[in-house]
Amino acid sequence: MASTVVGASGDSRDDVDPALSPFMYWIARCNNGLANLDTYAPFRFQGTTVGYVDRTFAVDHLERFPDAFVCDGGEVRLQQCLEDMKDLEERSCAVQQALLRLRDEGVITGWRDELYPVLTSFEAPPVLLMERAASVYFGIKAYGVHVNGYVEREDGGMDMWVARRAKSKPTWPGRLDHIVAGGQPHGISPTDNVVKECGEEAGIAKELAEKAVPVGAVSYCSEYSYGLKRDVLFCYDLKLPDEFVPVAVDGEVDDFCRMPVERVVDVVKRRVEEHGNDTYKDNCNLVVIDFLVRHGFIGPETPGYLDIIRGLRPGQELC
Amino acid sequence: MASTVVGASGDSRDDVDPALSPFMYWIARCNNGLANLDTYAPFRFQGTTVGYVDRTFAVDHLERFPDAFVCDGGEVRLQQCLEDMKDLEERSCAVQQALLRLRDEGVITGWRDELYPVLTSFEAPPVLLMERAASVYFGIKAYGVHVNGYVEREDGGMDMWVARRAKSKPTWPGRLDHIVAGGQPHGISPTDNVVKECGEEAGIAKELAEKAVPVGAVSYCSEYSYGLKRDVLFCYDLKLPDEFVPVAVDGEVDDFCRMPVERVVDVVKRRVEEHGNDTYKDNCNLVVIDFLVRHGFIGPETPGYLDIIRGLRPGQELC
Repeated sequence: MASTVVGASGDSRDDVDPALSPFMYWIARCNNGLANLDTYAPFRFQGTTVGYVDRTFAVDHLERFPDAFVCDGGEVRLQQCLEDMKDLEERSCAVQQALLRLRDEGVITGWRDELYPVLTSFEAPPVLLMERAASVYFGIKAYGVHVNGYVEREDGGMDMWVARRAKSKPTWPGRLDHIVAGGQPHGISPTDNVVKECGEEAGIAKELAEKAVPVGAVSYCSEYSYGLKRDVLFCYDLKLPDEFVPVAVDGEVDDFCRMPVERVVDVVKRRVEEHGNDTYKDNCNLVVIDFLVRHGFIGPETPGYLDIIRGLRPGQELC
Repeated sequence: MASTVVGASGDSRDDVDPALSPFMYWIARCNNGLANLDTYAPFRFQGTTVGYVDRTFAVDHLERFPDAFVCDGGEVRLQQCLEDMKDLEERSCAVQQALLRLRDEGVITGWRDELYPVLTSFEAPPVLLMERAASVYFGIKAYGVHVNGYVEREDGGMDMWVARRAKSKPTWPGRLDHIVAGGQPHGISPTDNVVKECGEEAGIAKELAEKAVPVGAVSYCSEYSYGLKRDVLFCYDLKLPDEFVPVAVDGEVDDFCRMPVERVVDVVKRRVEEHGNDTYKDNCNLVVIDFLVRHGFIGPETPGYLDIIRGLRPGQELC
């Protein structure tokens, strides 16, 4: 299961207000970067903000590469000749040279040899391709797909399939997860990506996976030690047949468990400080809360209902 | 059918960018007040913004009542002794005296003799009760319920029930509408209100109406000649049996029509400038677009998908 969150769980998030209601707890936890947004230097391309860079990181590590980066006026941007460069590969290559030096110095860790698109909006062509391990230091917006796999029971109730992440995974080991979720690579539609991930992660046949319904998106802005993680997750609902049982295909999931939605509500009400791995991976909670809102399990009688709905898609972050 | 929008249709909204995509057209049309928000004076109660007042209206008509209103520092608030007053009725009565004078002078028209709660948030107790006709001049946030009545056809497709507003209605006469929609009075839950409105407006029995599922909320901020209309609409989905036919009970609907969702999509893509009354009442479009997003009829392949999702609930307006 490809993770859409890079970094260790729990990292720098232990200051969530203990008085918050259970659902707002996860929204606050995933959005602990929003309050600090203006302590970061915007990373701009041709005047559009495409990311956020820790100011110390910019001074210590980007100013040393004046052929690639310009840090002034409180912002980080590419050298003018790189901005003006017509060829995406050529521009990306020039930036990559600086990033490789930072890798060799041990500043950027966890190199993946995977290029990540830097976008001005989801539908626009990339303005830069950047090594994924580096992109997190630049607070680049990332996209993912999350699938709510549910079963309509004969008695009128509803179950959800929940995955348990493998203990061996570098990110969020052992935490609960969606039946299918993954990062959104460039050059494939979210819907095609869902079909691909369904097969790779849970053994869901193409014909069934194609029945997944796009139902919206959630977004958040998390702060980690290395910087900001700004994600938009395309949400899908997949109604599964009663007899369907997912299969852990790629070894990234230890097991799957089917539970009544009422129990899922109880799981989402748990805090990681008390329940550790018996909680969903942080960002999954937002997608599950969105599911619970759309299916009426969280309703106007739930305290803070409108705050919850607003919190799932904080304004400017969803673009 | 109680309207959640006060004012004439089309009022001051003819400047929507003609290049906008069909769905963004309605979002922009309903949110034509957002861009002008800072040209209004915030109406504050004990430091919390509860409304917005046209600055000319404040100078011309509120400053004349120093016993009720204070206009300074760019904001409008109640006289300090009214803010400090413990009794809601007493406070409201003092304000009402000024508003009655404005009614008698012909400044405030369309008096309804219906008190509207002024709220700091939906769940907080009202801080003031204000005549509904007056509240629109104060840009008070209003709440409503809208019900998407749909049928799952045997062939796997989906139909929606659409109402045609009576030609005699003072607001939005003849436009298309939800099967059930209404303002949200104080002191009754949105869900109970849905059941009540279902019976009053479409002859939907209590047992069936209680199956309406709360599915979220949309919000918008519209500018009219008298000021800002800031609404939050609680959205419900009601799956109706194939054989069900709504009945126009209270004379506010001319007729109901059942149409395939694909045709509803075509209706929402229409602009009022070209199609006049063969379009939904402005705010219904937002609720229908939200329905289309949640049910996958608008998906990530739709241009501007994330802008649409964000536009249905503009940040701070949903509280």
